[in-house]
Amino acid sequence: MDDKLIIGGHEFDSRFILGSGKFSLEIINAVVKMGGAEMITLALRRANEGGEENILDYIPENISLIPNTSGARNAEEAVRIARIAREMNCGDFVKVEVIRDSKYLFPDNHETVKATEILAKEGFVVLPYMYPDLNVARDLVNAGASAVMPLAAPIGSNKGLATRDFIKILVDEIDLPIIVDAGIGRPSQACEAMEMGVDAIMCNTAVATSRDVSLMARAFKLAIESGRAAYLAGMGRVLAGKAEASSPLTGFLED
Amino acid sequence: MDDKLIIGGHEFDSRFILGSGKFSLEIINAVVKMGGAEMITLALRRANEGGEENILDYIPENISLIPNTSGARNAEEAVRIARIAREMNCGDFVKVEVIRDSKYLFPDNHETVKATEILAKEGFVVLPYMYPDLNVARDLVNAGASAVMPLAAPIGSNKGLATRDFIKILVDEIDLPIIVDAGIGRPSQACEAMEMGVDAIMCNTAVATSRDVSLMARAFKLAIESGRAAYLAGMGRVLAGKAEASSPLTGFLED
Amino acid sequence: MDDKLIIGGHEFDSRFILGSGKFSLEIINAVVKMGGAEMITLALRRANEGGEENILDYIPENISLIPNTSGARNAEEAVRIARIAREMNCGDFVKVEVIRDSKYLFPDNHETVKATEILAKEGFVVLPYMYPDLNVARDLVNAGASAVMPLAAPIGSNKGLATRDFIKILVDEIDLPIIVDAGIGRPSQACEAMEMGVDAIMCNTAVATSRDVSLMARAFKLAIESGRAAYLAGMGRVLAGKAEASSPLTGFLED
Amino acid sequence: MDDKLIIGGHEFDSRFILGSGKFSLEIINAVVKMGGAEMITLALRRANEGGEENILDYIPENISLIPNTSGARNAEEAVRIARIAREMNCGDFVKVEVIRDSKYLFPDNHETVKATEILAKEGFVVLPYMYPDLNVARDLVNAGASAVMPLAAPIGSNKGLATRDFIKILVDEIDLPIIVDAGIGRPSQACEAMEMGVDAIMCNTAVATSRDVSLMARAFKLAIESGRAAYLAGMGRVLAGKAEASSPLTGFLED
Repeated sequence: MDDKLIIGGHEFDSRFILGSGKFSLEIINAVVKMGGAEMITLALRRANEGGEENILDYIPENISLIPNTSGARNAEEAVRIARIAREMNCGDFVKVEVIRDSKYLFPDNHETVKATEILAKEGFVVLPYMYPDLNVARDLVNAGASAVMPLAAPIGSNKGLATRDFIKILVDEIDLPIIVDAGIGRPSQACEAMEMGVDAIMCNTAVATSRDVSLMARAFKLAIESGRAAYLAGMGRVLAGKAEASSPLTGFLED
Repeated sequence: MDDKLIIGGHEFDSRFILGSGKFSLEIINAVVKMGGAEMITLALRRANEGGEENILDYIPENISLIPNTSGARNAEEAVRIARIAREMNCGDFVKVEVIRDSKYLFPDNHETVKATEILAKEGFVVLPYMYPDLNVARDLVNAGASAVMPLAAPIGSNKGLATRDFIKILVDEIDLPIIVDAGIGRPSQACEAMEMGVDAIMCNTAVATSRDVSLMARAFKLAIESGRAAYLAGMGRVLAGKAEASSPLTGFLED
Repeated sequence: MDDKLIIGGHEFDSRFILGSGKFSLEIINAVVKMGGAEMITLALRRANEGGEENILDYIPENISLIPNTSGARNAEEAVRIARIAREMNCGDFVKVEVIRDSKYLFPDNHETVKATEILAKEGFVVLPYMYPDLNVARDLVNAGASAVMPLAAPIGSNKGLATRDFIKILVDEIDLPIIVDAGIGRPSQACEAMEMGVDAIMCNTAVATSRDVSLMARAFKLAIESGRAAYLAGMGRVLAGKAEASSPLTGFLED
Repeated sequence: MDDKLIIGGHEFDSRFILGSGKFSLEIINAVVKMGGAEMITLALRRANEGGEENILDYIPENISLIPNTSGARNAEEAVRIARIAREMNCGDFVKVEVIRDSKYLFPDNHETVKATEILAKEGFVVLPYMYPDLNVARDLVNAGASAVMPLAAPIGSNKGLATRDFIKILVDEIDLPIIVDAGIGRPSQACEAMEMGVDAIMCNTAVATSRDVSLMARAFKLAIESGRAAYLAGMGRVLAGKAEASSPLTGFLED
């Protein structure tokens, strides 16, 4: 099946994007492989850690790095971080994160639109992390975003698809890849989002807080593939107030 | 990973059990293969259709057939059907279905316990279809069942895990394989049930009512494997009222 | 509005039935009044406590007492308790509880049907506490029950309408008053059950575990009245994937 | 109980705010009375309809009118409508609605903040209708809003509390009255919102689409009072995986 995810002109087979923040260097490689991820996000600071160890050494070749602007509190700071990342040869992808709320870590939608507009003009492939508001998603399209990354629930919470109805609206109305980012806590939730027509899933905490991170990475890989296949296959109808025998042959014994 | 499903002393690698009632003969083979199923249930009538075509010719070798007692309205009729199936060389497995409600097709728990007891004594590997009631599940254990098959929602409804809380109780309290049967409509629901610790999923309608039955069979296969892996890996904690940055390195830009 | 609840030929204005088990004697009177309850259930043991204080002294006149068979593990014990209650002049009402599971305290449906049949023949107004299984509800109708009392969730759990879909089926299919009993934790859940067409709500723990039991009793009274009114008024349609302006006059400013 | 809702220095006993858009003039009076509303919102156009009939004649004295800026697509238009309303002697209250999406009718949060800031400086009591985004709610506080009105679901949809988790966050973090506006379809949903600590509920469609609008108005009144009482009383704990007998006296019969 030739079913590619295309972001900013780049093609991907995997629809599972991995965050790296919560992984120790030692396990990143295993997790990427078990999850079949082709993209991994990275805080600039982390790319830049210096010292003897470098996270980049732990990430397999042929994986696309997506630097994020973690730490930025406004558009200006996000733009500055993105430019530094490009100078460090991290490529043209950038995940824009602008966060000014330190308890729930919600993205600032308005500043995110501003940063997206500036960076898109500078040739970045911009993936903005956003609170799933249809009006803002439209502004991001106009600002030149290459995808939108709405949150499912507060980041790191593992609470699942708390914004379900509003992400479905983005799927229906926005003509860009929709990547659900933040809050997905279990593979079944990733699967459900994909069934709804979401294009990809990003997660980190759900894998990192599992007892067996490699096996959980594999569970997410399978769930995302499953949800995609189900979306393409088309879901069957739901009956409201009754049952329907599986078999047209069903009848009572003596009938 | 050596993670077998064991029912009545038989080992299986697949945790996806397929119902056959809604499939035409032509597609059964493809569906079994795409779904990776090793067990398929079959109404006696269907095994017995006679005529030129025989469903058995369409089922791959090395697949375990599980005749069901579809059509039985009480224990006596179920026992009679099971015995006929054995005489037809359908083997020792039997899925006990006793249904007297023609609108919702709910199993009659009390008659199901009676049939299970009789058939278990006769050496059958009995898999009773049941309404998920803990007291009855305990009675089925005592009656010699080899697994219990609680319903998720009315059969054929695709409504999903409407009995979620009560199936979880069976998982916690009953020391037999728990196979969720009936009502599962989407792969994400199968995945969620497996995450809860259910041992296997049976479905038919969700696959049969999809636009692309082979692809949907594959979606279920992946979802069930995913949920199983997640259960074994252990789910991470859920935060109640806040977020947690993915990265321990997260901090604001100028910090 | 002349909207009476009729159980076993008795008419009630209130659809809120109060359990007494978790209340101290001192507060029972206040709770009954604030909740506007006309029926209160009572364990035989409690009616029978003897000593200087007697619970009956704390229950306002004109309140119907409904002794329950708490402590019974099978039909025979339930029948015995009911007969003792009648001899103690507790009246003809009896709530049948047969429980053999000490962790989840689920009713034993099969023994409950047996006890109901015996007691109904002896002229009791029988209100059986049950696990919401349609087949069993039909058996209870045939056994002569005057109402059925399906559980919403494990008793005392405050978990809410975990059996929602199955209680709705009882509302649609069973021609007796449906009283949701056990598990309701918040007034909104009682309201939702009433909106579905349930006839009355019984609760105890949700009120007893509140900081202010009198005020919570009043909250339940209002919620139950609200849900009943909404059921009678008829709920409006739900739109699937769009909005609809409240005003037919709505238009943009310059239109 | 002295439990007043205070908005912009005005005190109200009722926490039910009625929208008028979907009501015919004939029934407005009855609905206001049955719902016990003290505030009713009104599109300027409607106040301004002219002709022989005037909506104001149908609204009982002592009801606070809250003109809304329905029809405004940006801050400037909203400000213009608000000023006209004041000149028409509609008072100082204004509900700011800025909507540029004609399918889901979602408010434009950014323009809403701008309009709020201008109008608050001009002395209006500003109640902004908003998409429930914590960052924006904080901006509205800073802009001088007197309350915030987050949506539960698309307006007129009757879908209920689709934004539940995010409204709860506003309740916890924002030190202004929170009025849930749009999407509430049933009294139980209004009750649940109030249990969470929301300060008031606004609705129109749920009442207007009922078969019996007066009775449904009364159902909402009761539900809102119930939810408020429950919030003040304090909800009891929820048990995770077990039951708890209502009675400390519970024990099996022969114990």
